[in-house]
Amino acid sequence: MLHLQSETDCRWLAQVDADLEAILIDHAHCEKKAAGTALNLIFAYVEHTELCRQMTEIVNEELEHFHMVLDLLEKRGVRFRRLTPSAYGRKLNDLVRKAEPHRAVDRLLVAGIIEARSCERFQKLAEHVEDRELAVFYQGLFESEARHHSTYTRLARDFAPPEEVLARRDELAAAEAEILASSDDPPRMHS
Amino acid sequence: MLHLQSETDCRWLAQVDADLEAILIDHAHCEKKAAGTALNLIFAYVEHTELCRQMTEIVNEELEHFHMVLDLLEKRGVRFRRLTPSAYGRKLNDLVRKAEPHRAVDRLLVAGIIEARSCERFQKLAEHVEDRELAVFYQGLFESEARHHSTYTRLARDFAPPEEVLARRDELAAAEAEILASSDDPPRMHS
Ligand SMILES: [Fe+2]
Ligand SMILES: [Fe+2]
Ligand SMILES: [Fe+2]
Ligand SMILES: [Fe+2]
Repeated sequence: MLHLQSETDCRWLAQVDADLEAILIDHAHCEKKAAGTALNLIFAYVEHTELCRQMTEIVNEELEHFHMVLDLLEKRGVRFRRLTPSAYGRKLNDLVRKAEPHRAVDRLLVAGIIEARSCERFQKLAEHVEDRELAVFYQGLFESEARHHSTYTRLARDFAPPEEVLARRDELAAAEAEILASSDDPPRMHS
Repeated sequence: MLHLQSETDCRWLAQVDADLEAILIDHAHCEKKAAGTALNLIFAYVEHTELCRQMTEIVNEELEHFHMVLDLLEKRGVRFRRLTPSAYGRKLNDLVRKAEPHRAVDRLLVAGIIEARSCERFQKLAEHVEDRELAVFYQGLFESEARHHSTYTRLARDFAPPEEVLARRDELAAAEAEILASSDDPPRMHS
């Protein structure tokens, strides 16, 4: 359903155990960035009414998630602060082709892959963390990120024929798996 | 209450009468830009929790306004399309000082002044347009843009002493009145 080409392994879970605080703070930043991605897509494809509607919903939901993570941090006495992001987002965005309509297809697919990976990792976290409250929190986010993944992938089909979109999605998913496998980032949501 | 230093006159209302369609389309773009401004402020000052909360609310409301205008356009059979913006926003943003914390103060005050002007013009439009539905629509937006104006101005006070903020607000408001007085833009929300 998530169309990922690798499964998060114990290397990342060991990073989570080593620095859960960094994972939490980075998670807040990721939700904020997800809102930014959706709003940028409105700016880029403002004449596509359905895209604007879907992106508006995603902006609202990601900002809601952002505040949910901020509240969680506050409750745990973790000070929210800036954090060097992992190279993941930049490396994926570097794969976006420059010319339209390929650009639209790639931006939507990359956004969809990031949602899928977050989703997969929330599931892993929910199973892995001892902390009951945290496990429930991650489980709660799973469903909406899975829905975001589907929305992005579906919208990509408005910019290219379905078989082209599927082929490109698999290509990008393979690249994504490779980016994570070769990551040397400190503990982050997408390290 | 809005702290503007000029009142919209019949020159602009004549532009409205000459090309209401352009005003409506530009209005949709303005709501979208207002959402972008608020989200950019979250990115810039993410450690300011209260600012993040207020900006999240504004992003949500501006996107709601954006869709309200899009629906209105659709109902009237006006095709939503790209439109060269007026020079207003760029000229105002050029006045933003580069160094923090002045930069934060100016970004918030400029955002607040744009809200105030939109608000003032919605009031003018509500009184001016013959179209009952449109008048009610503009009246409905008046209140929330006035609230946004207050929010921005209040937040600016977290980055500088109140008397400094008030002095700068008046300086920027004077510049804004001058920008509009010398505008040679085609019909736009802020021409
Ligand atoms: Fe999210
Ligand atoms: Fe998401
Ligand atoms: Fe608005
Ligand atoms: Fe507003």
